Amino acid sequence: MRKGIYIENTPLDEALKRWSQRILASGIKPLAGEMIPVKDSLGRMTAGAVFARLSAPFYHSAAMDGYAVKFVDTFGAAEYSPKKLSIGDRAVYVDTGDPMPDGFNAVVMIEDVNVVGAGGERPGYIEIIKPAAPWQHVRAIGEDIVCTELILPENHRIRPVDIGAVISGGHVDVLVRRRPKVAIIPTGSEIVEPGTELKKGDIIEYNSRILSALVTEWGGEPLRFGPISDDPGKIKDALLDGCARADLVVINAGSSAGSEDFTAKAVAELGEVILHGINIKPGKPVILGWIKGRPVLGIPGYPVSTYITFGLFAKGLIYKWQGLEPPEPGRIPARLSRQVASSLGQEEFLRVKLGKVGDNLIATPVSRGAGVLMSLVRADGIVRVPAMSEGFGAGTEVSVEMLRGKEEIENTVVCIGSHDNALDLLANILKKNYPKYSLSSAHVGSMGGLVALKKDEAHIAGTHLLDEETGEYNVAFIKRLLADRKIVLVNLVYRQQGLVVPKGNPKRISGFKDLLRDDIVFINRQSGAGTRLLTDKYLKELKIDPKAVRGYEREEYTHMGVASAVLTGIADTGMAILAAAKALDLDFIPLAKERYDLAVPAKYLAMPTLLALLKIIMEDREFRSGVEALGGYDVSDMGKIMYES
Amino acid sequence: MRKGIYIENTPLDEALKRWSQRILASGIKPLAGEMIPVKDSLGRMTAGAVFARLSAPFYHSAAMDGYAVKFVDTFGAAEYSPKKLSIGDRAVYVDTGDPMPDGFNAVVMIEDVNVVGAGGERPGYIEIIKPAAPWQHVRAIGEDIVCTELILPENHRIRPVDIGAVISGGHVDVLVRRRPKVAIIPTGSEIVEPGTELKKGDIIEYNSRILSALVTEWGGEPLRFGPISDDPGKIKDALLDGCARADLVVINAGSSAGSEDFTAKAVAELGEVILHGINIKPGKPVILGWIKGRPVLGIPGYPVSTYITFGLFAKGLIYKWQGLEPPEPGRIPARLSRQVASSLGQEEFLRVKLGKVGDNLIATPVSRGAGVLMSLVRADGIVRVPAMSEGFGAGTEVSVEMLRGKEEIENTVVCIGSHDNALDLLANILKKNYPKYSLSSAHVGSMGGLVALKKDEAHIAGTHLLDEETGEYNVAFIKRLLADRKIVLVNLVYRQQGLVVPKGNPKRISGFKDLLRDDIVFINRQSGAGTRLLTDKYLKELKIDPKAVRGYEREEYTHMGVASAVLTGIADTGMAILAAAKALDLDFIPLAKERYDLAVPAKYLAMPTLLALLKIIMEDREFRSGVEALGGYDVSDMGKIMYES
Repeated sequence: MRKGIYIENTPLDEALKRWSQRILASGIKPLAGEMIPVKDSLGRMTAGAVFARLSAPFYHSAAMDGYAVKFVDTFGAAEYSPKKLSIGDRAVYVDTGDPMPDGFNAVVMIEDVNVVGAGGERPGYIEIIKPAAPWQHVRAIGEDIVCTELILPENHRIRPVDIGAVISGGHVDVLVRRRPKVAIIPTGSEIVEPGTELKKGDIIEYNSRILSALVTEWGGEPLRFGPISDDPGKIKDALLDGCARADLVVINAGSSAGSEDFTAKAVAELGEVILHGINIKPGKPVILGWIKGRPVLGIPGYPVSTYITFGLFAKGLIYKWQGLEPPEPGRIPARLSRQVASSLGQEEFLRVKLGKVGDNLIATPVSRGAGVLMSLVRADGIVRVPAMSEGFGAGTEVSVEMLRGKEEIENTVVCIGSHDNALDLLANILKKNYPKYSLSSAHVGSMGGLVALKKDEAHIAGTHLLDEETGEYNVAFIKRLLADRKIVLVNLVYRQQGLVVPKGNPKRISGFKDLLRDDIVFINRQSGAGTRLLTDKYLKELKIDPKAVRGYEREEYTHMGVASAVLTGIADTGMAILAAAKALDLDFIPLAKERYDLAVPAKYLAMPTLLALLKIIMEDREFRSGVEALGGYDVSDMGKIMYES
Repeated sequence: MRKGIYIENTPLDEALKRWSQRILASGIKPLAGEMIPVKDSLGRMTAGAVFARLSAPFYHSAAMDGYAVKFVDTFGAAEYSPKKLSIGDRAVYVDTGDPMPDGFNAVVMIEDVNVVGAGGERPGYIEIIKPAAPWQHVRAIGEDIVCTELILPENHRIRPVDIGAVISGGHVDVLVRRRPKVAIIPTGSEIVEPGTELKKGDIIEYNSRILSALVTEWGGEPLRFGPISDDPGKIKDALLDGCARADLVVINAGSSAGSEDFTAKAVAELGEVILHGINIKPGKPVILGWIKGRPVLGIPGYPVSTYITFGLFAKGLIYKWQGLEPPEPGRIPARLSRQVASSLGQEEFLRVKLGKVGDNLIATPVSRGAGVLMSLVRADGIVRVPAMSEGFGAGTEVSVEMLRGKEEIENTVVCIGSHDNALDLLANILKKNYPKYSLSSAHVGSMGGLVALKKDEAHIAGTHLLDEETGEYNVAFIKRLLADRKIVLVNLVYRQQGLVVPKGNPKRISGFKDLLRDDIVFINRQSGAGTRLLTDKYLKELKIDPKAVRGYEREEYTHMGVASAVLTGIADTGMAILAAAKALDLDFIPLAKERYDLAVPAKYLAMPTLLALLKIIMEDREFRSGVEALGGYDVSDMGKIMYES
């Protein structure tokens, strides 16, 4: 049984309704304005209409270099009877922008004037051969802005040109909406500030930094409190302090259930708990509260839950306080690349990668753990699985709320297949050399990659499949699986496969035969991975029954996952590439050198993104030397075309 | 002849080419990185890949509340033979998030445990009825991030979630691109800081504030210098100082030609003038220079020229220094609502308003003066008229570089027709009550408005056309001009028309007959304006020949334009509404009360924007009382439907 207080399972729609009703009932409306210097107002929202106090220009000025004249003096001027006007008296030299002398009401351009006798001691005069029209070449008062005119309406986001116009209209300060203040209170006795020397049990506090950045992005002003330990008194003090200083208070539980209980109790004792617990995943244990006329939001501590629930319950409020509607997230239809099961009764927020392959926009779910922040970092969008759905089949068309722009997604090379550490490096060099392009890798094993090419779900597939009959890599599999496609096979690397063991190899593992030992726990790769095929080949050669290998059934999806399991003691050994062992400073028993290629359907070769990627593989020295530095790689054939169908 | 140095007329493309060649030749590339705290890095660009220094989590922790056990101890547990594990020794209570005790490798959920004899003095034990799988309910090291993993690539704009991931990966600081520094030097002896007590000839300095805001928007850091007077020595000192402190130096001439000459000379003496003068309008007298290894940009002083030339020659550079491509402006095809003539040999940057009326996107040019900053404030986009074109005919499809988002343009009500001051107020209340909606008004007179409805170029038209036969307003004209449309005519106001005269009426004007006097200069409205028809009606009634009225041929497009001309002495009197006279504190000779209606084609009535606008006209008290406060209005029929066809 769960300790502590009862958590509800309120449907999201109802929770949002109750939250906004409570907010409306309290009469929350756009915040009052504050006067700030116009020069500092970029991006702020006007809190009132801005009318011109001055005309611009506020005096008549010359619009050309020339002589200011009175137009009546120029009547009758003609080529055959030029009109003479004495300088200083009837004609005054003006540069563009100079104020017109009083009583003068036209400018004759310097090009149209014959200056006679100027300089020396005589005053001189000008000759003109055409009458001047009233106010010709004069920039009249109010040409740009007429005094009292509306320069900016209320609720307008101030742009660079607006700053100029408001200053020009005679203002030094401008009334803008106050930024909504959001108190952000991280709690939990186990949380520590970044940079602290860490001990087991510590959690580095970063949720408050994500929340602060979101508040800033939405136009608010974050007030981050120092971490508060799980002490009911301190939590209450922080809540009261937050309510006194901010418009919205957000309290972020530590990851332990205990601290969440403190929060709900504290809110209830100081004010009102509107509800506690919503049927969403991740993010269930949300607290909506009200203390001393302020909305208080208690959000769960797993970072994905923190991010999603804050968006649901704070974003709209922060925008509305600024007199704005929150921007609608861009939505785009996409096809799911694989089946997604979801529990009935909970609305799930599924993070997906998006890839535009040919005409298809493909959505591939990434890790679903509420604690996996990298699932948000890597995601291109979010798919909501309704509470009344048990999930979607592969190929279902879903609506994706976009986290990245469409152009960014369309400029992404989708790589599905076997995992190799060099792909991380490749992604980085691509972004470095071509800032608009990205490489997105999904690791489903070599076979999975070729199947993805067949289903038009990837632009390239990383593959290292050894055909035992021919001793050749990849080609036989491509001929079999992708017979109907024109495929180009480009070598990326040759790499060292072997058994990863802890530093110093304490259990003296020397090869596959040791997997039969009682004291050895193995960690495996998923079926379809080239490395899994290699594992099974060794077991078969040694006539070892997989069932006799402890841990054979536990699967990781990447070389780094295997190495990490060995590093952390989950397993004693596993099959991976040398680069993964080196990355985590582990020891390594080499077993095979294998070829790792990229398979590319010929139809994608003309894409600028693919061309850029291939150019790096074929020519880029930084990439080549970077791969070599990872360890265990032979790059002598990097970029070489190994086969074309 | 123009004084001072020769200005070229280099084609824009060639100027851009020479500028970028000079920049490339100097080896300009993305700026080096600087370390800043991760928590302050929102929106900054990574200057190197960010790899994880720590795994997250960095220790195995419980993923559920329950008891940590060693899975080997649980072998054989079954419903009929529960396994007993002594608490403290073989089973340790853990909350979610707690580190796993050393040697323990599974968690049994609290729901699946029967706790026996806990409390009191005995240590107690747990009973379980199912074996635990290895590592069940354990959040393993690296579940989120594996040490050495790529968290962010180089050239990535840091988002809120990225801040969390980088901190979680063990970083306190992050390497981001230094913001390019741009020295902004306003020059001109006539410029003064905002807030200064003004005298004739002063120009309020605001260009540097527009430039600073643009630099900020593009990710750079503006360094604004105090205004520099037109003194060659001081200009040179400022240029050298700028080159020492910034990556790019921008010197903004005062509006006089003289000061521009100083700039070119100063650049030439300190370094190199790459070119001076480009075939664009506005913006011709640009200076591209190079001093002590720094690019130096001299840009003209009229604000529209300043804005456009800075965009052309600085934006790309500021982005590239950050390792970014400048964002392409959104482009959209639109149909020109009227003819545009443009001079051959100059590429013109035409500011346009855009309106989505039915399926048509209509572009209407606004003021073309380089000194009219409001033309940029009001513009929705820019149309380039190529140097080799003499302009475009009405109805031509043009490509518009958008200054506002598509959604904003689609949420704009396009009002074309007669001008009334109440429309400014209406625009403001609409934006205030419905932040997403805008009202855009173009003032072409009543007839022009009805024609715009006919051509599907406007949603509504403001009109006050008196039919002399029936004595009725507007209806007869709608029946004639819009016979094939269903039109709803809604009253906005009754208003007072009359002659605007200077405060105190110094020339004792009492009515239209005074327009025949020699000492009176009149200011007229454009043909097609209802006020022009009224003027002509009075002249006809009094049998006054328009040719006998001084100034009859000089036209303004708005009531405020007429009032402004009277205020500034351009004219002695003109026909306008009382509100315009009151706005500028002028005197007024009332002549007629007239009805001002809005004509709306029935097919637009269902649009949410139109509904919002009509709701304000029909119901909003703030609008009604605001209009009354303008003076000279009768709002008794405001919102009443006067006619339906």
